[in-house]
Amino acid sequence: MTHQSEINNDAGGTLGRNTWVFSAGFAPSQSTGFEPDFTSRNTLCLLNTGDREACVRLTVYYDDAEPVGPYEIAVGARRVKHQRINDLIEPEAVYLDKPYGVVIDSDEPVVAQLYYLDSRDGNLAVSHLNPAPLP
Amino acid sequence: MTHQSEINNDAGGTLGRNTWVFSAGFAPSQSTGFEPDFTSRNTLCLLNTGDREACVRLTVYYDDAEPVGPYEIAVGARRVKHQRINDLIEPEAVYLDKPYGVVIDSDEPVVAQLYYLDSRDGNLAVSHLNPAPLP
Amino acid sequence: MTHQSEINNDAGGTLGRNTWVFSAGFAPSQSTGFEPDFTSRNTLCLLNTGDREACVRLTVYYDDAEPVGPYEIAVGARRVKHQRINDLIEPEAVYLDKPYGVVIDSDEPVVAQLYYLDSRDGNLAVSHLNPAPLP
Amino acid sequence: MTHQSEINNDAGGTLGRNTWVFSAGFAPSQSTGFEPDFTSRNTLCLLNTGDREACVRLTVYYDDAEPVGPYEIAVGARRVKHQRINDLIEPEAVYLDKPYGVVIDSDEPVVAQLYYLDSRDGNLAVSHLNPAPLP
Repeated sequence: MTHQSEINNDAGGTLGRNTWVFSAGFAPSQSTGFEPDFTSRNTLCLLNTGDREACVRLTVYYDDAEPVGPYEIAVGARRVKHQRINDLIEPEAVYLDKPYGVVIDSDEPVVAQLYYLDSRDGNLAVSHLNPAPLP
Repeated sequence: MTHQSEINNDAGGTLGRNTWVFSAGFAPSQSTGFEPDFTSRNTLCLLNTGDREACVRLTVYYDDAEPVGPYEIAVGARRVKHQRINDLIEPEAVYLDKPYGVVIDSDEPVVAQLYYLDSRDGNLAVSHLNPAPLP
Repeated sequence: MTHQSEINNDAGGTLGRNTWVFSAGFAPSQSTGFEPDFTSRNTLCLLNTGDREACVRLTVYYDDAEPVGPYEIAVGARRVKHQRINDLIEPEAVYLDKPYGVVIDSDEPVVAQLYYLDSRDGNLAVSHLNPAPLP
Repeated sequence: MTHQSEINNDAGGTLGRNTWVFSAGFAPSQSTGFEPDFTSRNTLCLLNTGDREACVRLTVYYDDAEPVGPYEIAVGARRVKHQRINDLIEPEAVYLDKPYGVVIDSDEPVVAQLYYLDSRDGNLAVSHLNPAPLP
């Protein structure tokens, strides 16, 4: 066995990339069921396996307006952070019921995955999505 | 902090690829619930982070006929576009209730992800899919 | 505009890989609703953008027995094929209600994505999955 | 036809990687319907196509505490193993109802994909997710 010991303390071992991108953003304004558990949403799931806090900045792209950003999210060293995009309000609230894309730019390597929950129709529908597989 | 500033104005910084491919296309003809929100569909989610409009051309592959295309979709500079494949009618309407694959060929790098909504059965089912991870 | 014209006739342009792999295979034996539309299943979505028929061979891995295969699937030139894994019976029926993994080995480059439909519980649940992102 | 024969006996042919990572972990404590089929969960789907048993070690990252691990999972040669993360109890039970990320570190190349089932709301919602596309 040749396990990579102490994976998150290895100098070159921080997992992830500095840039990620999603084109399939969407958060419905309508929900059914208990809040906040069943609130329709897009949640950005960030993981920082490194030993330094990461400052993650998002730029949000719309279909009818110039991009908005940066939205700043801090992710502590050796921490995960699941950030509802619906809850981002600075520099302005992310629009609901509108298609968007998002570029993620972090000063430290992080992992980013997107979670979608849709309870508009009286039942729970969920989906997960990786960022686009960039070269 | 060493953020990549003005990510979408960087000459080499346009995110994405010129070619993407999906093999799992399918759009049911049946739906339940409010239209157009709950119309069963495949939606192609395109993001152009660059400073030039992208002309995206789709070729649709079937299981019993020659490929059809190109379907042309314009995506503005610094814009996202969520295009329902069901709504593409030129050169001919994409078939419903039939398996298809789609090759995406863009003159500018773009990001492409696929969204699937299925309301046939009286409830909402959703899924997201990245293009195949090409070498 | 510098579109890649006649993408599927280009000698070096066949999209995909010869080998793909999934570890999350599972097909429930129970279903509700109309068959075959709402039959619980795993569907392997294959796309061959090339000009030669592809012979795709699957090897199925279980958690309590040696791998079984090859299962052979022909995918015509410039065709998609959505194959329900539940329907594969040679050399033996793929087990329902059991975890499996599948290795895909094709003589021509193809694209492979997996579709999951689960109607066991009286509603429709769906998901799509790419093959693992191999190096 | 140039099939890669005996794919899992080829010395260099073991499919997968030694390290994978997910940031979108979450397992609800609530469920409806028959157990264990419809128990809300995250299931880690591991495939070992090689000829040696793999020792897979997980490190789980939280949003408010130091990472916990290793959790050890053995995956036999030429076997798949679908491990509910909810069922991991050594060195301590993985928290329910809390966001987590997971780093997978195996002594042999394996394939890892994540399955999510959510039955909290009286219906079945499912999703599949690949590990992040690392460079």
